[in-house]
Amino acid sequence: MRLVMLAYDGFTDVDLFLPWDLFNRVHDPDYVGYTKPWSVRICADTPQVTSNTGIAITPHGGLGELAQADAVFIVSGPGSRAKLRDPDFMRQLELDPRRQVIGAIDSGVLFLARLGLLDGLSATTYPGVFAELEAMGVKTEHRPLVVHGQIATAGGCLATQDLAGWMVSRLLGREIADSMLGMIARVE
Amino acid sequence: MRLVMLAYDGFTDVDLFLPWDLFNRVHDPDYVGYTKPWSVRICADTPQVTSNTGIAITPHGGLGELAQADAVFIVSGPGSRAKLRDPDFMRQLELDPRRQVIGAIDSGVLFLARLGLLDGLSATTYPGVFAELEAMGVKTEHRPLVVHGQIATAGGCLATQDLAGWMVSRLLGREIADSMLGMIARVE
Repeated sequence: MRLVMLAYDGFTDVDLFLPWDLFNRVHDPDYVGYTKPWSVRICADTPQVTSNTGIAITPHGGLGELAQADAVFIVSGPGSRAKLRDPDFMRQLELDPRRQVIGAIDSGVLFLARLGLLDGLSATTYPGVFAELEAMGVKTEHRPLVVHGQIATAGGCLATQDLAGWMVSRLLGREIADSMLGMIARVE
Repeated sequence: MRLVMLAYDGFTDVDLFLPWDLFNRVHDPDYVGYTKPWSVRICADTPQVTSNTGIAITPHGGLGELAQADAVFIVSGPGSRAKLRDPDFMRQLELDPRRQVIGAIDSGVLFLARLGLLDGLSATTYPGVFAELEAMGVKTEHRPLVVHGQIATAGGCLATQDLAGWMVSRLLGREIADSMLGMIARVE
């Protein structure tokens, strides 16, 4: 099972690293018990990506991995607008919801809209991004998670939990998703 | 106002990057409105730190910045145990709750225990770490956040919100803390 996280310069830290942390917990046999191959890779079009706060990391691969993935998570961040205007970047986003589970958080949802993958569907996004998404012709819903078949969108950084949970549930089952989410829960 | 985040090899991604993301939002005049100097720096004893999932970043500074900070946030991760056994590392942790606001999440709480800063106090930690903390002589409480004066401990990765909120509230006021936390809330 191959999951690719699409990142780019100007990503928002929590929108990459919170789901990254969650997806990596699926590996942990002590907690989640998933022992089959499960690969999670951050992919980008540059040899390094830097968040909007200046955190620089080296991605695991390039955008060519997107088409081979079983699932794609699209991160959010102020840098998304420059990428949406970059035809070379957009051309490399080979996504197919007929055979891939696809999730996007906040301004990451704009990529799905631009690719036409939300045509006729509704979606959610970050509070400050609804007008932008609507201007792209997408009907919006003010909810943390909106699911249509194999595509889901999430709104508000912490809704990444709902999105990651939905993706893992769809790919590996509800039990593994719930174990993953339980590992970051507050102590009560 | 200087806030230092103490990191080390083998940190847990969400326990560094979620509070880092939150603390950086305090800078944002569009949302939080805090316009005075507010510095947030990740400090470590090595020129690079790598998380337990392999995310490598360059810290902003060394451990010498701890003593000069107004506030210190101690991150968590499996790598904490090696550092607890490293006298050179421990000797550099100059913390003073009489003049600093100090917060620790999950296994980061073990550093406070080792430094004697929890003597006579109670604390919380990650579900799997309570026994370890109790073995160090600390009375535990199964709650997301435990506060004693200028020291707070948080249990469960998502309790980092409670901890970051408490720290910012104490340093800059409740309004700025609430604005910061609201910026990552789920859309409803």
